[in-house]
Amino acid sequence: MKNIRIALAQINPTVGDLSGNSKKIISYIKKARKIKADIIAFPELAVTGYPPEDLLLKPHFVQDNIEALHRIKSATENIVSVIGFVDSDDGIYNAAAVISNGKLIDIYHKKHLPNYGVFDEYRYFRAGNKYPIYDLSGIKIGVTICEDIWHEKSPAIVQALNGASIIINLNASPYHIGKALLREDIVSKLASKCEASVMYVNMVGGQDELVFDGGSFISDEDGNIVARGEQFRERLIVADIKVKGCNKKLTAGNRRTLKSIVLKGESVKKIKIGPGPKQGPKPLNRKRSFHALSVQGEIYGALVLGTKDYVHKNGFKGVVVGMSGGIDSALVTTIAVDALGKDNVHGIFMPSVYTSKESYEDVNGHVKKLGIKIMTIPIDTLFNNYLKTLSKFFKGKKADITEENLQARIRGNLLMAFSNKFGCLVLTTGNKSEMSVGYATLYGDMAGGFAVIKDVPKMMVFEICEWRNRKEGRALIPERILWKEPTAELKKDQLDTDSLPPYSLLDPILKAYVEDDRSFDEIANMGCDMTSAKRVISMIDHSEYKRRQAPPGIKITARAFGRDRRFPITNKYKSY
Amino acid sequence: MKNIRIALAQINPTVGDLSGNSKKIISYIKKARKIKADIIAFPELAVTGYPPEDLLLKPHFVQDNIEALHRIKSATENIVSVIGFVDSDDGIYNAAAVISNGKLIDIYHKKHLPNYGVFDEYRYFRAGNKYPIYDLSGIKIGVTICEDIWHEKSPAIVQALNGASIIINLNASPYHIGKALLREDIVSKLASKCEASVMYVNMVGGQDELVFDGGSFISDEDGNIVARGEQFRERLIVADIKVKGCNKKLTAGNRRTLKSIVLKGESVKKIKIGPGPKQGPKPLNRKRSFHALSVQGEIYGALVLGTKDYVHKNGFKGVVVGMSGGIDSALVTTIAVDALGKDNVHGIFMPSVYTSKESYEDVNGHVKKLGIKIMTIPIDTLFNNYLKTLSKFFKGKKADITEENLQARIRGNLLMAFSNKFGCLVLTTGNKSEMSVGYATLYGDMAGGFAVIKDVPKMMVFEICEWRNRKEGRALIPERILWKEPTAELKKDQLDTDSLPPYSLLDPILKAYVEDDRSFDEIANMGCDMTSAKRVISMIDHSEYKRRQAPPGIKITARAFGRDRRFPITNKYKSY
Repeated sequence: MKNIRIALAQINPTVGDLSGNSKKIISYIKKARKIKADIIAFPELAVTGYPPEDLLLKPHFVQDNIEALHRIKSATENIVSVIGFVDSDDGIYNAAAVISNGKLIDIYHKKHLPNYGVFDEYRYFRAGNKYPIYDLSGIKIGVTICEDIWHEKSPAIVQALNGASIIINLNASPYHIGKALLREDIVSKLASKCEASVMYVNMVGGQDELVFDGGSFISDEDGNIVARGEQFRERLIVADIKVKGCNKKLTAGNRRTLKSIVLKGESVKKIKIGPGPKQGPKPLNRKRSFHALSVQGEIYGALVLGTKDYVHKNGFKGVVVGMSGGIDSALVTTIAVDALGKDNVHGIFMPSVYTSKESYEDVNGHVKKLGIKIMTIPIDTLFNNYLKTLSKFFKGKKADITEENLQARIRGNLLMAFSNKFGCLVLTTGNKSEMSVGYATLYGDMAGGFAVIKDVPKMMVFEICEWRNRKEGRALIPERILWKEPTAELKKDQLDTDSLPPYSLLDPILKAYVEDDRSFDEIANMGCDMTSAKRVISMIDHSEYKRRQAPPGIKITARAFGRDRRFPITNKYKSY
Repeated sequence: MKNIRIALAQINPTVGDLSGNSKKIISYIKKARKIKADIIAFPELAVTGYPPEDLLLKPHFVQDNIEALHRIKSATENIVSVIGFVDSDDGIYNAAAVISNGKLIDIYHKKHLPNYGVFDEYRYFRAGNKYPIYDLSGIKIGVTICEDIWHEKSPAIVQALNGASIIINLNASPYHIGKALLREDIVSKLASKCEASVMYVNMVGGQDELVFDGGSFISDEDGNIVARGEQFRERLIVADIKVKGCNKKLTAGNRRTLKSIVLKGESVKKIKIGPGPKQGPKPLNRKRSFHALSVQGEIYGALVLGTKDYVHKNGFKGVVVGMSGGIDSALVTTIAVDALGKDNVHGIFMPSVYTSKESYEDVNGHVKKLGIKIMTIPIDTLFNNYLKTLSKFFKGKKADITEENLQARIRGNLLMAFSNKFGCLVLTTGNKSEMSVGYATLYGDMAGGFAVIKDVPKMMVFEICEWRNRKEGRALIPERILWKEPTAELKKDQLDTDSLPPYSLLDPILKAYVEDDRSFDEIANMGCDMTSAKRVISMIDHSEYKRRQAPPGIKITARAFGRDRRFPITNKYKSY
């Protein structure tokens, strides 16, 4: 058995920031060398950030990323560095450079390209078909990238059959609920089947709709998770691993299993790299780490990081939020304060004749607890002015959704005026339940740059607020906001339940239809009444045009709106 | 030589409208049988419409499309019908059903799946790997789908080597400028190389961002286009073709060329279908047809059909357009009238203190010529009301873009109020040049359901207006609108050139950067000044957030915004 010290650089690159990302990569290589790591691994496409999307179609972008990689080379003295970048050959590849002592030893090309959900890798990349094994003084190492390790026919299998006792896996794996445990489960099973330690290094940070949650980890060859990086933060995770040396032999059973998974066209090349493991200090003693976060805590962490990175990476310092006294805007404001600091969050309260006394009290109570400033701008004069302007055209017509939308759009216009005048980003406050059924006004409450809780269903909004209050040890969000009946306050005595089924009924239907692609029959069999189910499905289908114009927001479920769910607007399919 | 009568059904299905599309398919089969066609071919995915996008992830949708296909079967008496649908087996396939006399004879699976530009076929489909040959009384026929015929290793090659003298190619090929000639060029070359007639049947109709232009055609085995369907209309194209019978032999040269293009895993199965060619009436005499449309005429045709189908297929009858007196809104209104009829187009003129006398005159002159009604709603009172409401918060701040955007958003709010009250769709009027550099107000002039000329650069807007006037034989669009200096009229004496380079300079830069992925160096070498080039590129990069919230509009160039160009909003890459 040999001892080897591994470092996983869980870093937060920015898409397109080739020089900033390179600097970060070099600084982590230096840190890892200081603590005498033998190998350091970086996330998938660490040089470019992930996903670079159609930047990849620009030949000069790919060229600039290759030049950035070559500038990093010289920083790799005495440490093997495995770095995700875009390789260019007879096409472009999602690739990992294996660099040692200033020399580019080899380049691995990702074999399994995801092209589902938020991923479009076939749009850009060619698939690799080589499985090199790197020999570091007798320790055999295989490199894989993200999807490669999820796929039934993982290159790791070929690598293990050819003696690899360490599999490095570079990732840009976006967060959704339950993903962290799923990853560990998949990897741990593969590790024990391959009798190899797996180094799972993930990216961290927000990129438009996605949050990469980090949570990098190391599985030993028995499938035990022996080290784990915190989620939602940059971290250097270091561990000492004992590995079988050059004479690693798989047990007969595993060998048989792996051999039965035929990989056609496998081509294994052994490449020596060095220097080998150093006579370092005595092995690091690491305690077994556990998942620190509850489900709600994890979601909250994703929302805070996603908001912070969207705002900062796009060059904004502060944000404006329209606060209504309702729970959605209360949650968004709280997240914004946690992400950006209270001085960078500006609340705007825009009451109308339909705004209740409770809303006044709750908004003011909440901002006091958050320590942020609030501006109050009544909209009645403007609203009446619009009504007067339109009266001669609308003569004889009853009041309807038009008048409600007018109010929402006056508020949108005012928020955008603050955004324009003070250079703040407007955060919108709609939740996933509203987004699903279109219970929101385009250019009204949907106006803004970033939709923080767009993928959080209403029932989960309640849960997360409760969790945040528990964490605070007091009602940071006033109790009444959590318990009062949801209302848009756009007409007299309005309640959400005038237009929608109760959220406790609505949310399961939405999940079944939007996330799980259930048919009407299946949904009707869930026990909800047929009329509600039909109405809800029809509302979802008919709101696609609104969602197409919605700002991006943070994906936290297995299927978010946006890149993750691509629906035609023009669509006459009826599932009921 | 044998004679065979072929029909191409250039139809306009609606995405998701399984029953409506089926009815249409059956009615075209009946028409074709009446004129004694031996074979009728329908477009790619004719049963579902194209592209069905994530509807394909719903198992019940795929099941419903298969059931629809089976219901069509019984209508195929005495005519071989080749129909695009989604097949389901160990995954789903973009497929063509070959049906004869009520029986499903075989299913062809598309081999080459496009996954670039607007296409995402790897997201849904598995690739086929079989190349059956259908034997119709000694005439051998190969079926292919769309991309299959563009690909270097076309299945048509295997089919030709195995005796096919007719290649049927089902398409859902979206329009862009020059595409029709490109298609004919590709197909004609393949036809003469394969010494086979090619039946290219294309879909027609608008679907969100795409317009399928039809223009189906038939190439004989020498590569001559012998029949051609009109663009932008449903048509049944019928032709009599003379083909070599069962003893077709390729010339030695072509045989060698085709054999050199190795297709691995080719599997040719010969399947007899029938009934064979009938003793029909004497061959149809068809004149050689030519392309009827100029470039501008073709673009105009695409814009009219795209608008008409978006409005009608989404259940609207009428539209509202904000008319400013400028050329963009003049063109959009004219297109709307051509698409929907004058009674369904409602102009709204919303002047402010910055609106010139010329704008009044030009709007009124134009609507008179179009024969549509116009409503005039001055916005100054509302604007002053906003200024007053905001004055205490904006104290000490200079007027800037905020005040300009306020006006645009008041107009957006008014247009949306008409939309809500009368159930009309708002058409937005921004052109591609503005979309590119972000010279537009989110929730202001960008507010609306459909962005008709979103992919038409400003210089082309001028050209198309001139073309439309020439076609009319008079200034349907008043001459002054075509020649006056572009201005947004959002502040005193404003001109577009205050903020942008002249459009004659801007448009080539935009094309180079957006459509052709040129680098800054390449653009600078085009002869424009470096400062303008840098400024323009930076404006394009920084307006991605606006484009993400723009309504869909009609693709007419090789790369439109929308599904066609997927850029990160958070993006620190600088190409200059």
